[in-house]
Amino acid sequence: MTQIILDTLNQEISQLQYGQYPPELYEPIGYIMSLGGKRLRPVLTLLSSSLFDDNWQQFVKPAIAIEVFHNFTLMHDDIMDAAPLRRGKPTVHHKWNNNVAILSGDVMLVCAYELLLHVKPEKLPLALKKFNRCAAQVCEGQQLDMNFEQLPTVSEDEYINMIQLKTAVLLGLSLELGGILANAPLQQTDLLYQMGVAIGTGFQLKDDLLDVYGDQAKFGKQVGGDIIANKKTFLLIKALELAEGNSKVTLQSWLNATSFKAEEKVKEVTDIYNTLHIRSLTEVKMNEFFAEGLHCLDLLAVSEERKQPLRDFIERLIHREN
Amino acid sequence: MTQIILDTLNQEISQLQYGQYPPELYEPIGYIMSLGGKRLRPVLTLLSSSLFDDNWQQFVKPAIAIEVFHNFTLMHDDIMDAAPLRRGKPTVHHKWNNNVAILSGDVMLVCAYELLLHVKPEKLPLALKKFNRCAAQVCEGQQLDMNFEQLPTVSEDEYINMIQLKTAVLLGLSLELGGILANAPLQQTDLLYQMGVAIGTGFQLKDDLLDVYGDQAKFGKQVGGDIIANKKTFLLIKALELAEGNSKVTLQSWLNATSFKAEEKVKEVTDIYNTLHIRSLTEVKMNEFFAEGLHCLDLLAVSEERKQPLRDFIERLIHREN
Repeated sequence: MTQIILDTLNQEISQLQYGQYPPELYEPIGYIMSLGGKRLRPVLTLLSSSLFDDNWQQFVKPAIAIEVFHNFTLMHDDIMDAAPLRRGKPTVHHKWNNNVAILSGDVMLVCAYELLLHVKPEKLPLALKKFNRCAAQVCEGQQLDMNFEQLPTVSEDEYINMIQLKTAVLLGLSLELGGILANAPLQQTDLLYQMGVAIGTGFQLKDDLLDVYGDQAKFGKQVGGDIIANKKTFLLIKALELAEGNSKVTLQSWLNATSFKAEEKVKEVTDIYNTLHIRSLTEVKMNEFFAEGLHCLDLLAVSEERKQPLRDFIERLIHREN
Repeated sequence: MTQIILDTLNQEISQLQYGQYPPELYEPIGYIMSLGGKRLRPVLTLLSSSLFDDNWQQFVKPAIAIEVFHNFTLMHDDIMDAAPLRRGKPTVHHKWNNNVAILSGDVMLVCAYELLLHVKPEKLPLALKKFNRCAAQVCEGQQLDMNFEQLPTVSEDEYINMIQLKTAVLLGLSLELGGILANAPLQQTDLLYQMGVAIGTGFQLKDDLLDVYGDQAKFGKQVGGDIIANKKTFLLIKALELAEGNSKVTLQSWLNATSFKAEEKVKEVTDIYNTLHIRSLTEVKMNEFFAEGLHCLDLLAVSEERKQPLRDFIERLIHREN
């Protein structure tokens, strides 16, 4: 079922009409939406809806609202992060310019709300309320992420809170919206939300791990990119918390270094991580979140047979290597 | 009534809670909303609603949605225009930075949708549909405005289309939404929209006129600012269309001048406008739009007594000198 859902989503996304004129405003939307990606969020919405209603096809447009919203955040985040590439292609602000990326992003957020208008009227106020709260939280997470770059240290709790806002709550909403659309009871949609937030948090920790311990052949991005950029990932935060003596001095000197060989920095910082058992500490934390997510799935009052496609999809997410 | 509406709006706006943490995200929203302004758009919404329902108080929150949306567009436009000042105070991107202004603006647009959720459920889909269309058009208008800066010439029709998208349709929506909220028939809300677009177009032409022919003591901004900046206003577009011979050469040389005395440029370009009767040509056009707006008001199927506050308010807009 998941493959049919994905094909349907990609088909529908390729045919979406966002607007025509002026082209500078609308072309970047089609461009960023065409860069692909796993369509993870709308797949989750439709798999979630199918727990309660066989006819997931009727919910494709609201599911795509979440994908459009997600890509809107990418378009604006890329400006703020001055990122030149997104999925191996030039970012919108790089291909056009910052003003185009600001304004196309704005109209993209409006497009997301327009797609949400395909929610049945009796469900619309609830869907919008949940969507608005999530959208504000994603902005909060992005602001915190930018703030953290300027801070000398960030605590584990602060970091988990930030990635939950920036990344995980949108996976929570994706699953919750599926339930809302398919008329699931409140207790079930709450469980779906909790499940999405937990899986999403584990998912981000996995991202942090793959950056250091991923297989370069499978990973796609440059292994060690976060280390090179001093990105405050869970691994670095944990290492800064635990390092003592020589490890602490060496780690700090790599963080302060302005001129270095990338491979050397990646190797030496990874060595410190290894000494401090950062990999398994992160895996423990990640697996706690995945376990919480799977526990929520167990608790859902739906037959195992109905759960199977969602369970399979989430298992694949958990074990992904890129 | 208008004064009570304005006081109620300002009171409600000063008490709005947008969010708390992180402060960089939410403080700019309170800041830009506190800079004041005439609250023209929500006043129009509530005056419009009071044509059909005495209890305009129940519609304050959706009316403020339009004011929040308007200020969101100002926050993002100021980044794109690199404007240092807004209503005599530092713009958000100047007081904080571009990234804060992008992200606060984003969450502000979400806040506008959240305020729209106070529309009665049975009216919500229609209100959202109208709001979305208008929001996209305002973005289109801003993109066209930026595009026009790069073009050697713009036609009168292109200019009118641009200001209608950038400015006038939001005044149309303001009036239309009042009708929708107060359960007015479709024919009446269509008339209200048409009225707002016409008045809004005249309003922008008046802005263009005041920049050149305003009374400095009353105007607030620097008279001649558009001339100094080569802004493609209706006046300049008309002058470029009509100038011949000496006037044409002189006008073009002022547009190409990179080093000049501001007062001299303003005086000489104004002289060319005067020779070409640009003021009265603009007034004729502006008055056509005002007449169309007032004609729509005449056509509204509501007693003259009920119309009086809205009529008075619009008359004051038409005759404003700042």
